Amino acid sequence: MTGWVVIIGLGPGADGLITPDAQAAIAAATDIVGYIPYVRRITPRDGLVLHESDNRVEMERATHALQMADDGRRIVVVSSGDPGVFAMASAVFEAVEAGPADWCNLDIRVIPGITAMLAAAAAAGAPLGHDFCAINLSDNLKPWSLIETRLRLAAEADFAMAFYNPRSRSRPDGFGRTLAILRECCEPGRVIIFARAVSTPDQTLRVTTLDDATPEMADMRTIVLVGSSLTRAIARDGAPFVYTPRSVAQ
Amino acid sequence: MTGWVVIIGLGPGADGLITPDAQAAIAAATDIVGYIPYVRRITPRDGLVLHESDNRVEMERATHALQMADDGRRIVVVSSGDPGVFAMASAVFEAVEAGPADWCNLDIRVIPGITAMLAAAAAAGAPLGHDFCAINLSDNLKPWSLIETRLRLAAEADFAMAFYNPRSRSRPDGFGRTLAILRECCEPGRVIIFARAVSTPDQTLRVTTLDDATPEMADMRTIVLVGSSLTRAIARDGAPFVYTPRSVAQ
Repeated sequence: MTGWVVIIGLGPGADGLITPDAQAAIAAATDIVGYIPYVRRITPRDGLVLHESDNRVEMERATHALQMADDGRRIVVVSSGDPGVFAMASAVFEAVEAGPADWCNLDIRVIPGITAMLAAAAAAGAPLGHDFCAINLSDNLKPWSLIETRLRLAAEADFAMAFYNPRSRSRPDGFGRTLAILRECCEPGRVIIFARAVSTPDQTLRVTTLDDATPEMADMRTIVLVGSSLTRAIARDGAPFVYTPRSVAQ
Repeated sequence: MTGWVVIIGLGPGADGLITPDAQAAIAAATDIVGYIPYVRRITPRDGLVLHESDNRVEMERATHALQMADDGRRIVVVSSGDPGVFAMASAVFEAVEAGPADWCNLDIRVIPGITAMLAAAAAAGAPLGHDFCAINLSDNLKPWSLIETRLRLAAEADFAMAFYNPRSRSRPDGFGRTLAILRECCEPGRVIIFARAVSTPDQTLRVTTLDDATPEMADMRTIVLVGSSLTRAIARDGAPFVYTPRSVAQ
C-alpha cells in the first residue's frame, strides 16, 4: 500500500462549508490527525483511526502523520478553515524538512478550505472586496515588533486587514496594543468588524468603529476585520452591510 | 413570494471545490446571474432562468439581480473563487447604495468560496502560511500609483503576496513593472509561483525566483504568489514544495 498525507481544512464550522474534495479525502483515509476539536468533527467509522492531539504540538503531530504515511497509511491532517492559512500545512512541510531526506518524495497534498476571514467577510457583506492583508496577531512564534511594523505598513498601504488569533487568555494585552496602533494610523470612524464563531450556531457579528472598539470585543474564536479608508457600512434594519468598493478614484 | 439575492463563489474550477452551501443556493434559485463562463458552469433545469452577461458590466448585472429580487424572485449571483475577493459581492452592495432606498432591506447574503490564491497556494504547498496580502494588479478601477505604493509597502512589511489579474491583453505592461518594483525591494532568489488554471484540467504550476521570472509567465488565468523573505522551496522529484514557516526568529 502506498501511503499519503492530505492536509485539509474543515472550514469555519458549518458542515455546508466543507468541500467535497475534503470529504473525499476523509472517506479514503485510514487515519485522521489533528487538534482535538477538529478531529471530533469527523464522523467515526470502522477502519478509521482518529488521532487527537493538543494545541501547540503541531510539529509532533505533523511528524507523526509523515511517519505513518511512510509506513503506507493514508493520513488526513485536519485543520479548521483553510489548512494553508495559519494552520497545519506549513507545519507539515517544516516536518518534511526536519525529517529523513526521503520524506520530501512522499505523496503530500493540500486541499484548500474556506478560511475564517472569508467566512467573516461574507457574514458582514464584502469588506475584503479590495486589496487586503491577513495578519496573525499571536506573538507566540514571532516578535511583537514585527506585528507592530506590519500593522503600521498595512495601514499606510490602506489595505483592509483581517486579524487571526487577536486575543487569548495567555495573550490578553496584544489586541489592545493593536487597537492603539491603528488609532495612531487611521481615522476614528474606520469600520471594524468582530465576527465570532462564524457559520456556527454561536455566531455573533458586531460592526463598529475604531473609536468605539474595545479589546474585550475579541477572543480566540473571533476574526477581526478592519476596513480600508474607503470601506462603507450601509445602515439598515439589523446589522449593516459592510463593503469595500471595487474602485479607487483615479 | 419573498425574493432574495445570494452571492456565491464557484471556487477556482473543480466541482469538488464548490461548497454544499453554494450548491443549496443554486438549487433554491429561480434565476442565475453572472459573467458568461461562470453561468455556464451551472447545470440547467426547468424553472431556472440563466442570465449571462459580459465582463465589465458588473454594476448593470448587480442592479438587475436586485431588481429581480425586489420583484420576488430568488437570485443567485455567481462569481468564480470567493465572491468577496475581487468579485461580485462588492458590486452588489455598490448597487444597493446606488439604488432605491428600500433596497438596503432586501434579503442579501454572501456565501464564501475557495478563492483562487488559496487554491494556488495549496497546489504549491503552503506559501501563504504566514502573514500575507492580496493585491489586484488591474489598474482598470484604481490608479497604478496606488498599486506601486502597495507593492513597496508589502515588500517592506515582508508579507507574502498574492496577485490577482496580473496581466491581460489590454494591460500587457503592468506585470513587468510589478516585477521591476519587486526586484528593487526583494532579494533575487525570492520564491515566486505562477499558478495557472488551478484545479482545472489545464492546471500548470511553475516555481521560480524573482530573478528568473518574466512577464510572459502570467496571463489572466494566472495567480502569482510571491513568498516572504523566509519562504522556502523543498527540492524533490517534480515541482518543489513551497512553504512559509510559521515562525520568525525572536
